[in-house]
Amino acid sequence: MTNRKHNFSAGPCTLPLEVLEEAQHEFVDYQGAGMSLIEMSHRGAHFDTVANEAMSLAMEVFEVPDDFSVLFLQGGAILQFSMIPMNLLHNGQKGAYVNSGTWAKGAITDAKQYGEVYTAWDGAETNYTRMPSTEDLQMQDNTRYLHITTNETIGGIRFADWPEVDVPMIGDMSSEYMARPIPWDKFDMIYGGAQKNLGPAGMAVVFIRKSILEHTNQNIGRYLRYDIQESKGSMFNTPPVFPIYMFGKVLKWMKKEGGLASMEANASKKSSTLYTAIDQSGGYYNCPVEVASRSHMNVVFRLPSEDLEKKFLSESVNEGLLNLKGHRSVGGCRASIYNALPYESVIALTQFMDTFKAANS
Amino acid sequence: MTNRKHNFSAGPCTLPLEVLEEAQHEFVDYQGAGMSLIEMSHRGAHFDTVANEAMSLAMEVFEVPDDFSVLFLQGGAILQFSMIPMNLLHNGQKGAYVNSGTWAKGAITDAKQYGEVYTAWDGAETNYTRMPSTEDLQMQDNTRYLHITTNETIGGIRFADWPEVDVPMIGDMSSEYMARPIPWDKFDMIYGGAQKNLGPAGMAVVFIRKSILEHTNQNIGRYLRYDIQESKGSMFNTPPVFPIYMFGKVLKWMKKEGGLASMEANASKKSSTLYTAIDQSGGYYNCPVEVASRSHMNVVFRLPSEDLEKKFLSESVNEGLLNLKGHRSVGGCRASIYNALPYESVIALTQFMDTFKAANS
Repeated sequence: MTNRKHNFSAGPCTLPLEVLEEAQHEFVDYQGAGMSLIEMSHRGAHFDTVANEAMSLAMEVFEVPDDFSVLFLQGGAILQFSMIPMNLLHNGQKGAYVNSGTWAKGAITDAKQYGEVYTAWDGAETNYTRMPSTEDLQMQDNTRYLHITTNETIGGIRFADWPEVDVPMIGDMSSEYMARPIPWDKFDMIYGGAQKNLGPAGMAVVFIRKSILEHTNQNIGRYLRYDIQESKGSMFNTPPVFPIYMFGKVLKWMKKEGGLASMEANASKKSSTLYTAIDQSGGYYNCPVEVASRSHMNVVFRLPSEDLEKKFLSESVNEGLLNLKGHRSVGGCRASIYNALPYESVIALTQFMDTFKAANS
Repeated sequence: MTNRKHNFSAGPCTLPLEVLEEAQHEFVDYQGAGMSLIEMSHRGAHFDTVANEAMSLAMEVFEVPDDFSVLFLQGGAILQFSMIPMNLLHNGQKGAYVNSGTWAKGAITDAKQYGEVYTAWDGAETNYTRMPSTEDLQMQDNTRYLHITTNETIGGIRFADWPEVDVPMIGDMSSEYMARPIPWDKFDMIYGGAQKNLGPAGMAVVFIRKSILEHTNQNIGRYLRYDIQESKGSMFNTPPVFPIYMFGKVLKWMKKEGGLASMEANASKKSSTLYTAIDQSGGYYNCPVEVASRSHMNVVFRLPSEDLEKKFLSESVNEGLLNLKGHRSVGGCRASIYNALPYESVIALTQFMDTFKAANS
């Protein structure tokens, strides 16, 4: 395909072209079966292979230890905001939350419906321009978990260093999923929506410590129970077939490209190229995020005026650079540079930034 | 495609071939946009058009009055089993349930976590071989709704006549969705999984009476609230993009094929052809369901012995007749003949049934 655009969408977003082409090729007649994969029973041999392969590749590529299970759920990361306290908080235990921005606030809002929660650190005071250090966290007694949003898609900040706390952590990793290694011993659960680094929309991928499933709350609807979902291998009911299938293909692509280490190195290379272009623009482009907390996935930046931002966004489209508009809640510009975005797209963006600055200074 | 099989899967299942081919054609480069639809922001112009078209076609094709809204949710019909009582039962109100089989039992199990529920009629006493009449129902005071499973996928029974009760009904229509008209004045809500008549797996489609959204419970997580989902046009978070897109295409196909009346007539024709073949086999094939309650979507039948059933299922595959095995919980055979299954597939099945009987009597 010759027409392919540079797609900086925050999600759903760019997927590897070869994954799309392979899926297209086998879309109507899957492996000569006489039907599409999406027409097949989720309990049949073909999909069984697809699902098992996606599960085992997820564990392998993300370097997940055996004492975790992977779940394919629906409802996005947002349904997890409810499921986490529903399943995990009982007997007066509290959930601690880092309020790092839009997504963390959502997690706190929903958790309050299902248990006692508190904010261990509030980023509102620094306008969500950085993540906390371990010393910043105010932990309380009887805390079941510390919930963190490892990367805030809208604010463009991430935890460069993991907090060191005495309770297990739970991480919403939606917008930097499988782009860096996880210190699994610190976590009871990692979760996120698939529609950024992992595949199309319509699936949340959850990695959960098996041992905690013996103690989850059972007085909730069956779909919402981690213990049931795990014991049924995410097949308690009809799973999101197409996202699982595409996730499997993305995982194969990740593995072929060098796995997690390669994804992390590429993210570092792409983001540093872009931040360098911003920082060396003499203040024309400006990233409001503190250097140590800058996201490797969502690079936010401003121009000297909102008028120039408008012009920048309009002209970038003509150059095939799409979806650079910042989130409507914060304005400005944002380049989401997820795993599948080629380095060439970042170069094309920095070149356009130079050209635009020269023409509009 | 010359290799296409007759696919009697209970879901996911056969979709219209032309829908699959169209989706394949535009899969990598959607309408010349330089990217796949599944790579696009769900808040962008392309997907906005897709989602709005699917919503308005859903209302049109299913002949839904304006005082209902359509929601595209995740978690399948099973998450609705929890969401219904969560949202609708308060102040000591009760939920009445018809226990018509496997799916109804699931709805009852989950509802018990969120309110007081009772069984208004229990099909266990007749081994789930029929649906109740209005006279069979034992309604109690202070009942908020009567929940019915309009068609039981596993048992192969349906409500031929709608119950006449003094409370609003809620119908799980998963396995006969948009295959018959609904008397909307009797219902507050119709819902079901998409993965049978409507498209691929990964979406529940909910039609809900707008006026009841003013009185739903607000002390629950935001994803789980009907009022929020409705006010956000099912875009509270990233929706299941691909199922919505495919649903829109299936709806266009339904409309082109003659709409709901045509779907109902085809279902009637296909099911009566199959039931006639069973009934006129001199007892060789046997449908355990009472005639008045026979499903027009899931035709269950037995052979004289389990050995013959095994042979039947094995040989049918050789004839390109796939997925005729009954659900593992009940055994026997089942032909699911959803909207997109061509009449020719039913004819191919009845011809095979004749041949098999002649060779194995």
